[in-house]
Amino acid sequence: MNFLRIDDFKLKDINNIFKMADKLKDNDDLLLKGKTFVLFFPESSIRTRLSFEMGIKALGGESVLFPPSTLDKREALVDVVSYIKNWADGIIVRHSNYDKVSELASSSDLPIINAMTSKNHPCEILSDIYSISKLLDDYLDLIYTFVGSEGNIINSWVTAADLFGFMLNHVCYEKYRIKEDDETYKFLTSLNDALKISDVVLTDPLPKELRNSDYYDEYQITKERMNLCKENAFLNPCPPFFRGEEVSEDVINSEYFVGYEFKKNLIYVQQAIILHCLNIDF
Amino acid sequence: MNFLRIDDFKLKDINNIFKMADKLKDNDDLLLKGKTFVLFFPESSIRTRLSFEMGIKALGGESVLFPPSTLDKREALVDVVSYIKNWADGIIVRHSNYDKVSELASSSDLPIINAMTSKNHPCEILSDIYSISKLLDDYLDLIYTFVGSEGNIINSWVTAADLFGFMLNHVCYEKYRIKEDDETYKFLTSLNDALKISDVVLTDPLPKELRNSDYYDEYQITKERMNLCKENAFLNPCPPFFRGEEVSEDVINSEYFVGYEFKKNLIYVQQAIILHCLNIDF
Amino acid sequence: MNFLRIDDFKLKDINNIFKMADKLKDNDDLLLKGKTFVLFFPESSIRTRLSFEMGIKALGGESVLFPPSTLDKREALVDVVSYIKNWADGIIVRHSNYDKVSELASSSDLPIINAMTSKNHPCEILSDIYSISKLLDDYLDLIYTFVGSEGNIINSWVTAADLFGFMLNHVCYEKYRIKEDDETYKFLTSLNDALKISDVVLTDPLPKELRNSDYYDEYQITKERMNLCKENAFLNPCPPFFRGEEVSEDVINSEYFVGYEFKKNLIYVQQAIILHCLNIDF
Repeated sequence: MNFLRIDDFKLKDINNIFKMADKLKDNDDLLLKGKTFVLFFPESSIRTRLSFEMGIKALGGESVLFPPSTLDKREALVDVVSYIKNWADGIIVRHSNYDKVSELASSSDLPIINAMTSKNHPCEILSDIYSISKLLDDYLDLIYTFVGSEGNIINSWVTAADLFGFMLNHVCYEKYRIKEDDETYKFLTSLNDALKISDVVLTDPLPKELRNSDYYDEYQITKERMNLCKENAFLNPCPPFFRGEEVSEDVINSEYFVGYEFKKNLIYVQQAIILHCLNIDF
Repeated sequence: MNFLRIDDFKLKDINNIFKMADKLKDNDDLLLKGKTFVLFFPESSIRTRLSFEMGIKALGGESVLFPPSTLDKREALVDVVSYIKNWADGIIVRHSNYDKVSELASSSDLPIINAMTSKNHPCEILSDIYSISKLLDDYLDLIYTFVGSEGNIINSWVTAADLFGFMLNHVCYEKYRIKEDDETYKFLTSLNDALKISDVVLTDPLPKELRNSDYYDEYQITKERMNLCKENAFLNPCPPFFRGEEVSEDVINSEYFVGYEFKKNLIYVQQAIILHCLNIDF
Repeated sequence: MNFLRIDDFKLKDINNIFKMADKLKDNDDLLLKGKTFVLFFPESSIRTRLSFEMGIKALGGESVLFPPSTLDKREALVDVVSYIKNWADGIIVRHSNYDKVSELASSSDLPIINAMTSKNHPCEILSDIYSISKLLDDYLDLIYTFVGSEGNIINSWVTAADLFGFMLNHVCYEKYRIKEDDETYKFLTSLNDALKISDVVLTDPLPKELRNSDYYDEYQITKERMNLCKENAFLNPCPPFFRGEEVSEDVINSEYFVGYEFKKNLIYVQQAIILHCLNIDF
């Protein structure tokens, strides 16, 4: 099967993936032996590319890297995929254009995994939720607060909140609201109001239009502001993050910051996603 | 030895390569263990690069990829090769300039394999002929018809026809004739006349000057036109092919199209070419 | 530990590295099994990249290649490294900006190995000294002469001369002098005076301003000029070298030239540097 959006999986699938991720931390089985994956990735993608390539290799599989622009040639995507199917067992693709990834997926029965588009970033957010679940058993009862404008990260958090049923606050200027408030999405313009009830604070790099002191004064996540949150709250900024912009230098150096450590799980969650999409039991 | 043009091999060599390709389909021997190949390839080459990299890996060898532009620096090619010889057992190169590939080959005794130039594409055509031989035992008695202008693909078919001794029709406007008619090359401007006697129809992407309705009306390969061919005829368009240009949408979706499946053999034929060039018995 | 400059090592360390390099020539132990290295390299770097990648692979390790420009994004280098540390055991980096490499090194305890900057090239020069030591036991008593302008190669030779205590002549127009003469560095404008006392002649590609017949008349290394040197003298030009520029065609074709062969040791010396930096005993 394909994995293009978080809600391509049912909760049952995700439970299975999380359980596999647990077991993969201590696994020597070459579950992907003899399997090859074509990766369409910008070479300069560090975290996602490294964790996919190493995850595949650790399970005995092979990956071959192509630039995403390979998909922008005149050749029909159905033909690109149909030839690749001769030699590959799956495609992992980062491409700005979600429609292109979606077209790849509908062109064949070769599993396609979305490793980020300008619309969403399902592997990353699923891995973050897994990391949170390892930190706190009651992760579905926590209040999540995303601070920042619209983009692929908040989009995937919104999809995740809807699927998992946890509460997601979105804090920014009113114009960045994504949809009307509903059971799992609440838009606020007051950061303080949101932080007071928050367990998990999330950010994403700012678009140019928000990189200014007005925004920073109102919405930059600082250590002082994190002090307003509920007990045991933590900050998980989406990398690359920028000190002095969406987050302050002091909050990154504080105990609130869980960033580096959290991404360790990328490798296991992505391995589990691959195994699930290939129907490999483990 | 090097493989720069199809007729670098004698028919005896090619028989050996085809026999090795047969055996390689069901082989677990790590015939290239401990061997390393330098690949000069545009990263965005999908089929040839993937099949070379995977073919080498499957035989236990390693490949390291460099962009073809590495060969366009000021350094003399003899020096590039002489240093590479310290660490590699062969070079597989895709570069527009055939003379550069030829200069590489004459610079050392390191085997050089031509993976496409603007002049020819010997590995691809040899693999196609192998695929045809698997489909039909009497492949040397078939009539081959290439429809399109001049370029590296027709050039290699012309060399192959001459070496193997099969009949190759070339159909296009008169100005695209490659040489005078001879025993194995016949130029025709009438597609219908050619198709009536054809078993195998071949195409190549069109240059810009031929992407127009005049050309399509006269020479586009459609399902209806394939119906004119001899029994059991098939269409093997050189990828990337473009629906609505050298081939119609309906012919690609028809039984005449053997394209995707045919390329599966690229991996085995290329493995066999490598083994032959390295004098590895199998 | 990091390896950014030749004098990051003590002579004792280098003795250890040279001994390891000896043993690595005939080694089957997978000393880097389970270890992954992130390589920041221009894809078109042939010699250093190939020898690092193959050296790591031969010891059972894995490497993942990124373009050096990955380090030029807005993300703080401390964050780039801190995430990479989740998955990698070391970073090998070629980047024009030495300060950036140095900042990487001071950002974490992940070993950083400098694979060339515009300021220096420690791995290459250490490997050259190793090659010389294999050729001549008294390599520390030889007279080394570098002919050419300022740059990363002469810089590393100057550091090496100072650390090892051997005598290094530097020959060029006066303006290219690097520092005042001292115990191990002597600047000369007369090539003949220098060659008469030289055992080892070193060059580097010329900057554009020196690619002219005036320079060639005065400083190009020719076979005739090598005849002036002491007995058993040899020429080790830093690749890429250019026939007809810093070196003549005839000297490259002469017995004086040790270039291709010398670089074979790159793989062993670099493997030893990695093992030393990772505190792996061997």
